[in-house]
Amino acid sequence: MSIDPRDPVAVAQALIRCESVTPAEGGAQALLESLLAPLGFEVWRPTFSDEGTPDVANLYARRGEGEAFVLAGHTDVVPTGDEARWTEGPFSGAIAGGELYGRGAVDMKGAIACMVAAVARALDGGGELPGPVAFLITGDEEGPAINGTAKLLEWAHARGERFSGCLLGEPTNPEALGDVAKIGRRGSLSGTVTLPGVQGHVAYPHLARNPVRELAPALTALLGEPLDEGTEHFEPSNLEVVGVRSGTGAFNVIPGEAALQFNVRFNDLHTADSLMALIRDRLDDALGAGAYALAFEPSNADAFLTAPGPLVEAVSAAIEAETGRRPALTTGGGTSDARFIKSYCPVIEFGLVGQTMHQTDERVAVADLETLTRIYGRALANAFG
Amino acid sequence: MSIDPRDPVAVAQALIRCESVTPAEGGAQALLESLLAPLGFEVWRPTFSDEGTPDVANLYARRGEGEAFVLAGHTDVVPTGDEARWTEGPFSGAIAGGELYGRGAVDMKGAIACMVAAVARALDGGGELPGPVAFLITGDEEGPAINGTAKLLEWAHARGERFSGCLLGEPTNPEALGDVAKIGRRGSLSGTVTLPGVQGHVAYPHLARNPVRELAPALTALLGEPLDEGTEHFEPSNLEVVGVRSGTGAFNVIPGEAALQFNVRFNDLHTADSLMALIRDRLDDALGAGAYALAFEPSNADAFLTAPGPLVEAVSAAIEAETGRRPALTTGGGTSDARFIKSYCPVIEFGLVGQTMHQTDERVAVADLETLTRIYGRALANAFG
Repeated sequence: MSIDPRDPVAVAQALIRCESVTPAEGGAQALLESLLAPLGFEVWRPTFSDEGTPDVANLYARRGEGEAFVLAGHTDVVPTGDEARWTEGPFSGAIAGGELYGRGAVDMKGAIACMVAAVARALDGGGELPGPVAFLITGDEEGPAINGTAKLLEWAHARGERFSGCLLGEPTNPEALGDVAKIGRRGSLSGTVTLPGVQGHVAYPHLARNPVRELAPALTALLGEPLDEGTEHFEPSNLEVVGVRSGTGAFNVIPGEAALQFNVRFNDLHTADSLMALIRDRLDDALGAGAYALAFEPSNADAFLTAPGPLVEAVSAAIEAETGRRPALTTGGGTSDARFIKSYCPVIEFGLVGQTMHQTDERVAVADLETLTRIYGRALANAFG
Repeated sequence: MSIDPRDPVAVAQALIRCESVTPAEGGAQALLESLLAPLGFEVWRPTFSDEGTPDVANLYARRGEGEAFVLAGHTDVVPTGDEARWTEGPFSGAIAGGELYGRGAVDMKGAIACMVAAVARALDGGGELPGPVAFLITGDEEGPAINGTAKLLEWAHARGERFSGCLLGEPTNPEALGDVAKIGRRGSLSGTVTLPGVQGHVAYPHLARNPVRELAPALTALLGEPLDEGTEHFEPSNLEVVGVRSGTGAFNVIPGEAALQFNVRFNDLHTADSLMALIRDRLDDALGAGAYALAFEPSNADAFLTAPGPLVEAVSAAIEAETGRRPALTTGGGTSDARFIKSYCPVIEFGLVGQTMHQTDERVAVADLETLTRIYGRALANAFG
């Protein structure tokens, strides 16, 4: 069956039918190659490996020479959960009530289909793209993100690939197409505080030292005072204690250790480094230096911002032209591969409506796929304009 | 090999050689029967059972008619740990440097051997006991204590057995024979506080509710203010938080629930019931009624006291006569089977030096076995005096 690359619905259906739960490629990138190569794209499909992680398939494609404008995304999807609870099969690509069902419909096979369709339409009937365009597609966004976009960017850069800007198709809209474009992301810092104690029998507390007594001051140190009040483009930084562990489960044993895990989502008033120092200061004040151990996770990332400018205007204007609304420019939510791309070129994120992402019955309005295709087409033209 | 029941060292060695780790009988009670029956004791060996627990062997023996003075103890022992780390094998009963080694040497096969020897010596050469004496021996003191002393007392009471007083041979002395006799025990109350929350992604805290935020006030409510300042015979009541649990282990998930476990060792200013109400009041004040769940364990026990009187004097005087010191009369430490016996007759606890109990190289000074045998003999005489 031949798929018309100008039809975002047909492309999205075909992508959804590929069972590409991270780290499986599931045929999704092979399908993209089969669509992009006939459109004149040179296509590379490097697989990256790392110790302790599965191999991951990636795709890079470019048409035209020189600094390319990048359309970025991922073909991998999160697991389906209980398939029996889906109205339409998660890999069926079925359309019902004007909505296309399937895992990845909004996050983000639907958006990739719109990118392909936007490019195909520009090339239709002997047309030409407004400049060099590249696709940067990974299969490891929902997983550990070790063998995905970060390595694909390194690989491309080493080959001499250069980028003028990037549009990443994550589902940014909370309610309706046009709500929100993301121009940055908060940083993320995770760590563990360990409070040492001396284990013992609960009937002989003088022979033990219960570390749980230090938990309340440790929690107050971390949660008591806001980290800041936010900045022009960012919400206030927020710390959540995501885990607390102490005790053996037995009621007659005083625990020998207590530990708490925390995560901070932070804005551009901090760096991971400055925040580490701040947290250590607060704990030192509450518990005394040396009274606890503090370890940070290796996965920390600083906040970043693509300041309003030509790229942000190119995309905002395209959204406004097609939806009648200028998107809010925000930096909230979780992380995305934009955190890697921002080191190579300005990056903005705009995609479908995210309401059903990662849920049972993930689905997208068929009409939104048509609108997003036109937005992406205009954004490409504006970016080179 | 025939064992001389008048020799506490020989009897203790023979008992230690029985591998009676709870719930195994290991031949220890059979050995006691073989020693007591020739001394004119009528011996019963009922086994008790309960759903979800192993069957447990028990021994009851009586010589003489009417209200008996009870010598109580347990033949079961805790596990040995790594046997290779013992200086002498834990079931060897070996003597080195004037000390008898083995699991149960002080807790409490050694004391049982002294009880047997005290009785055998009184009966030696046609002598007589000062009154009816019973042995109340279980194999389930170190285990769940379901099929042990509690049921053995019920069984005996149903048969018409009545008791004037009881001497329980737990290792009560911290440093030297004569330090401490226990005339009561604190109560024990265990419970779990559960704080409900709403699980969610750490990047979207407005869609979740982190229950860890309530942990600090909950801990302060439980630990902030002492429960009391102690009483004449009891230390201050003490609450320990023995466990805290929250989180999935992932740094990006706000937990849906937090829970803390606590145990209180409490004195005669409280009952389990009054303490439950006090804890609920404190949590209500800190968190608001209905903002948490509180569940108590079924194993709670009230404090009890054998007020100084004839029994306490009989034992104290015997200790002083043999060691030159009057024992401190305390109520500290963990629970023991005295919590069951106190409902049938006054009970006092006095045994060996507990320093090595439950440890690798558990051992007892051979000289202490001789001294304790004489103390037990005098205590028996005094109790009927």
